[in-house]
Amino acid sequence: MKLLRYLPIALACCFPAILRAQVQVHPNLMLTEAGIPAVKKGIAEYPLLKKSFADIKAKADKALAEKMDVPTPRDGAGGYTHEQHKNNAANILSCGIAFQMTGDVKYSTYIKDILLLYAAQYEQWPKHPKQKSNQIPGKLFWQCLNDFVWQVTVIQGYDMAYNSIAVKDRATIEEHLFVPILKYFTEDCKETFNLIHNHGTWCLAAVGITAYVIHKPEYVEMALKGSNRDGKTGFLKQLEELFSPDGYYTEGPYYQRYAIMPFVILAKAIQQNQPERQIFKYRDNILAKAIHAGLQCTYTTNYFFPINDAMKDKDFVSDEMVYGVDIAYADIQPEADLLDIAKKQNKVVISDAGLTVAKALADGKAQPFGYKSQWMSDGPKGDEGGLGILRYGTNASQQCLLLKAAGQGMGHGHFDRLEILYYDNGSEIFSDYGSARFVNIESKFGGDYLPENKTWAKQTIAHNTVTVDRQSQFGAVLNKAQPTHASLLHFEAKGDIQITSARENQAYPGVGLLRSSILFKPDGATKALMIDVFQVNAAAEHQYSLPFWYQGVITDASFKFSAVTNDLKALGSDNGFQHIWFNSDNDVANQSSYITMLNAEHFYTTHFVGTSPMKVKLVTVGAGDPNMNLRNERGFILEQKQAGCQAFISITETHGRTDATAETTTGAKSNISNLKVIGNEAAETTFSFAVKGKTYTCKLNYSSKDKFIQISKN
Amino acid sequence: MKLLRYLPIALACCFPAILRAQVQVHPNLMLTEAGIPAVKKGIAEYPLLKKSFADIKAKADKALAEKMDVPTPRDGAGGYTHEQHKNNAANILSCGIAFQMTGDVKYSTYIKDILLLYAAQYEQWPKHPKQKSNQIPGKLFWQCLNDFVWQVTVIQGYDMAYNSIAVKDRATIEEHLFVPILKYFTEDCKETFNLIHNHGTWCLAAVGITAYVIHKPEYVEMALKGSNRDGKTGFLKQLEELFSPDGYYTEGPYYQRYAIMPFVILAKAIQQNQPERQIFKYRDNILAKAIHAGLQCTYTTNYFFPINDAMKDKDFVSDEMVYGVDIAYADIQPEADLLDIAKKQNKVVISDAGLTVAKALADGKAQPFGYKSQWMSDGPKGDEGGLGILRYGTNASQQCLLLKAAGQGMGHGHFDRLEILYYDNGSEIFSDYGSARFVNIESKFGGDYLPENKTWAKQTIAHNTVTVDRQSQFGAVLNKAQPTHASLLHFEAKGDIQITSARENQAYPGVGLLRSSILFKPDGATKALMIDVFQVNAAAEHQYSLPFWYQGVITDASFKFSAVTNDLKALGSDNGFQHIWFNSDNDVANQSSYITMLNAEHFYTTHFVGTSPMKVKLVTVGAGDPNMNLRNERGFILEQKQAGCQAFISITETHGRTDATAETTTGAKSNISNLKVIGNEAAETTFSFAVKGKTYTCKLNYSSKDKFIQISKN
Repeated sequence: MKLLRYLPIALACCFPAILRAQVQVHPNLMLTEAGIPAVKKGIAEYPLLKKSFADIKAKADKALAEKMDVPTPRDGAGGYTHEQHKNNAANILSCGIAFQMTGDVKYSTYIKDILLLYAAQYEQWPKHPKQKSNQIPGKLFWQCLNDFVWQVTVIQGYDMAYNSIAVKDRATIEEHLFVPILKYFTEDCKETFNLIHNHGTWCLAAVGITAYVIHKPEYVEMALKGSNRDGKTGFLKQLEELFSPDGYYTEGPYYQRYAIMPFVILAKAIQQNQPERQIFKYRDNILAKAIHAGLQCTYTTNYFFPINDAMKDKDFVSDEMVYGVDIAYADIQPEADLLDIAKKQNKVVISDAGLTVAKALADGKAQPFGYKSQWMSDGPKGDEGGLGILRYGTNASQQCLLLKAAGQGMGHGHFDRLEILYYDNGSEIFSDYGSARFVNIESKFGGDYLPENKTWAKQTIAHNTVTVDRQSQFGAVLNKAQPTHASLLHFEAKGDIQITSARENQAYPGVGLLRSSILFKPDGATKALMIDVFQVNAAAEHQYSLPFWYQGVITDASFKFSAVTNDLKALGSDNGFQHIWFNSDNDVANQSSYITMLNAEHFYTTHFVGTSPMKVKLVTVGAGDPNMNLRNERGFILEQKQAGCQAFISITETHGRTDATAETTTGAKSNISNLKVIGNEAAETTFSFAVKGKTYTCKLNYSSKDKFIQISKN
Repeated sequence: MKLLRYLPIALACCFPAILRAQVQVHPNLMLTEAGIPAVKKGIAEYPLLKKSFADIKAKADKALAEKMDVPTPRDGAGGYTHEQHKNNAANILSCGIAFQMTGDVKYSTYIKDILLLYAAQYEQWPKHPKQKSNQIPGKLFWQCLNDFVWQVTVIQGYDMAYNSIAVKDRATIEEHLFVPILKYFTEDCKETFNLIHNHGTWCLAAVGITAYVIHKPEYVEMALKGSNRDGKTGFLKQLEELFSPDGYYTEGPYYQRYAIMPFVILAKAIQQNQPERQIFKYRDNILAKAIHAGLQCTYTTNYFFPINDAMKDKDFVSDEMVYGVDIAYADIQPEADLLDIAKKQNKVVISDAGLTVAKALADGKAQPFGYKSQWMSDGPKGDEGGLGILRYGTNASQQCLLLKAAGQGMGHGHFDRLEILYYDNGSEIFSDYGSARFVNIESKFGGDYLPENKTWAKQTIAHNTVTVDRQSQFGAVLNKAQPTHASLLHFEAKGDIQITSARENQAYPGVGLLRSSILFKPDGATKALMIDVFQVNAAAEHQYSLPFWYQGVITDASFKFSAVTNDLKALGSDNGFQHIWFNSDNDVANQSSYITMLNAEHFYTTHFVGTSPMKVKLVTVGAGDPNMNLRNERGFILEQKQAGCQAFISITETHGRTDATAETTTGAKSNISNLKVIGNEAAETTFSFAVKGKTYTCKLNYSSKDKFIQISKN
């Protein structure tokens, strides 16, 4: 924060002067004039660079072979004109790279020709005829965000073709396309431009990079310091506000990934054009931290934790993270385990950074990626809760337990405080539904978030956390949730006991929520147990519902259930309950019970007990869904209804194997037994359980720093 | 059949004489005394043999490190004693191989010790206390089948350790274990021994191989010619009866795979001990044909077509097929494309055959497997229907369309005549549920077929074929179905039009079913269209239901549907309809309609039209399922109700792509339009449709050989 205080002044003095003094060279973004000879050599020499270029060149050649089309914008996401403009941008970038690497002017001619077509029409186009609700429209696309992304892509291609385009044509393109775009983005989209939000990042990256390339220093300054050039908004402010000191992006990993790209490309442009800014060192290397945080927010399958609005099939192989990893390794800090990620990405950016990465990989420098157990703080100051990430075991069979105790994450945030996600053996065990959306599929609500995203995916019951009185946290009202955050109580992750413990006291008036999620490896075991202690505390009586949304199938239970065979009812009528089919209702009273699931050939048994009589409901997602938009995922919901200090305690054990090919099964029975609550009050919770007949007692002392968790074997 | 006529006589004369004359050598099965030096050398030299041996040796070493346990049999499938005896057998085989390859007697000592433990107890054990219904119990396992498999495994290990076990110990093992086993299998299990069925194959393989190893020629003869040594049953008869001339095994691919192993191992034992029999050439190389037929009954994912009772996760990587492929290549015919399969199996048997395969692979001789379009006949004479298998495209993006028009396939057969399965781009598009079973998972109905296998998986409505009046074919009565079979009408598979056309006239009294399934590639297209013409013909009015059980999700439809949001009902009360949730009912009248599905990032649009007013029901599996045993798969059911000659005509087009990583979508709209019935009568069906605006007319002339199908472009 110290940096922020003096920077605006420093910038205001020397910044335009520096820009003016500089000799304009092209290209000078990801690919630089100085770096080109080495990159050209590298594409013959380093396998990953070679492969990556072959892909790009194939795309460029395909672009040249196709009929050029710059249609009048008409369609929403997934429709023809939408996809065509997206493709045109990608083609311009591919052709720019192909031109620089091969020197063949057919590629730069393509860029010139298509940009002249855009220049001939852009100013005549009105705002996009379809508008996405609550979004400023673009001119090419139905939301301005897509226009920003388009421009970030296109300007890079233009920069690469720049020197081979006649001055007259450049003037046409800049005057009738890029300058109007700068105006549109900074004036018509001014509100977004000044937003501290990923849409804002894309907007100012488009403006900033374009301004560097076509030499408009006043726009560079706006990009860095906001419309009013006062530093209250703009790129530097975004670097301050959007990431926590640990690099966590407040909207969550899905948007962290999305936002990384403009952050990185603009930073690289700044670095090339104004190296004296030392942008990569800004705020104690915040960009490197953001890239690392993005990677630490993945499981070993490469997929991001699908918290908040997230497409579940998104992983770090996406282009945004390729840019991030290449820049992080080449321009910030060459950490060998980033090369492991680059290898899995199987792609580098054809750029100075990509060359460095491909060479290092060819030199055999890669190390396995260092997944960490860590508390990843949220909020600009790191004091607005965060994610507790526990990991156990090798990358090949890692257990990962996430406790989400962060801030709301703005409009894409879900009402899911203190939810857990649990992974093991390369699979989701207890999962988050992610968002309800068919991204870019026009026939599905225009490719936008579906109505069920609000009525189901965001609601508390869709998450592995306690729902109180069948209401969502904060009544599912963003404005109530956004100013608040969950709070870390305790985190430790050494040896065979790892724990995150966090509180949420504002989501439900008068109800204190306190969850402790634990990985504990008993003596002689190869895997840790996942232990979950969810304490709820209220003077009045409340109904508490704690779902475990699981992947796989139930193969066993300690109680006999009998699912509804006909006339299946929804579990409720609102707050997400209207989307849940109520398959089976089971009263397990005060008994310790269990459910066994089979998931990817491994068994998982969850033993559970409460402090008051418990019911277990078996449920399936899919009610209240006239368009059949939802996936039929399954869960079991534990319920207690009582006043005072209550707790749900569960232990999930990984055990046994099935082998579908050999048709063998081993270890189908859990080794855990006798889970018992010994005591539960506001200050501490104590319980015991047996592993293969040996009894363990676990005590959580919520007010102790040194002895927060103690597990003893009797 | 000629062979069969003279063989029994020939055998009766010379066979015992030959056996007696032979010098007994050990080992002399998959691994032979003569072959051992070369195999030993090969495990150092050829990567796949090396890897395969390393796996076996690791298992052998693990066996030696564990406590030896030969428990009194007690548990059903998946339980401790069941799995322990299975493991013991696998360990004995692994140790036998490890002994032969390393010469270390610790491995043969293990075999001697554990077999002495078995010999000390076997005779005292009663029949297994748990019995599987309708099955003769084993002594080690709850069904005698498992005892047969155990013995086929164990005797191979014994054969390898033979020379290093003291004569006295051998006498004990043979007298108190193997001879009693021979007696048990041929006397107590006599009924199974003489069964023309996979259980029978395992039984007589166990008997035959054991008899060769411990030199009991009378049992060899029984294994080859049945209990009465009259050739009416036994191995040779099985080779005649169980496979069609094309090598198709009447129970279907899942059991074809299972049966291959004993066939192959016994055949190899015969070849080693009585080479003059030329067993591999028997019935025009029927064993080689069976192995190839097994492979041709897979899709490019390696998975078998899951018709009849089949676990869907079974592929040709299973051990049985490793034995099959190795023997087929090394002992029968060295076809280079078998090496492609061996490579995918990533394993060879440590044997003379495995050496040959591993060497050929190391020499780079592999060719891509030659998937074929073929009519694969069923029945010993090849005249009891069969499978129509159409394939289009490369192995990397193959379209495969199966029309099942075979015999019933005995007790594991489903009532699914004229069902289709459709695959594309490495995915199931229209799928068969397979069997309802959690194999070897004791908590799920003892690991056996679930009750839902009978009430759901076998019923006609669970399959992509017409159900008449909501009844299953043959009333789902095996005895009615078994004597009959569907019939091939026409098969051709050349150029851009491939077709299977078949009839079934007995499944529903008074109703003729005639289905023509077609792959047709229009000019300029890269993929074929899947065209399906299902004609139903009856004097009386009937209700016809034709389901398409699809994988993936519906993203679009030509009609607006509104799924039930609460109080979800089952579609019916019996014949499988009680297991179907009825999500949505839609009246499309006489209009050509479509449904678009997204499956593994590709779009599939099915256009359909009927000859009478049509209803479309959207449905989900899972009603009537108190134990939640069923997977919630989805389908749409086309329904017509009319007398006379009716037809369902549909065209399924593969189009477009989504890319989850890049978040792009192309070609989400189908290129097909205007599907129209021009005429439909018993003798011919004519319809037209447009592809990208160009009209095609398709005429099926059911009585013509030369012009069965004509497609013309107008």
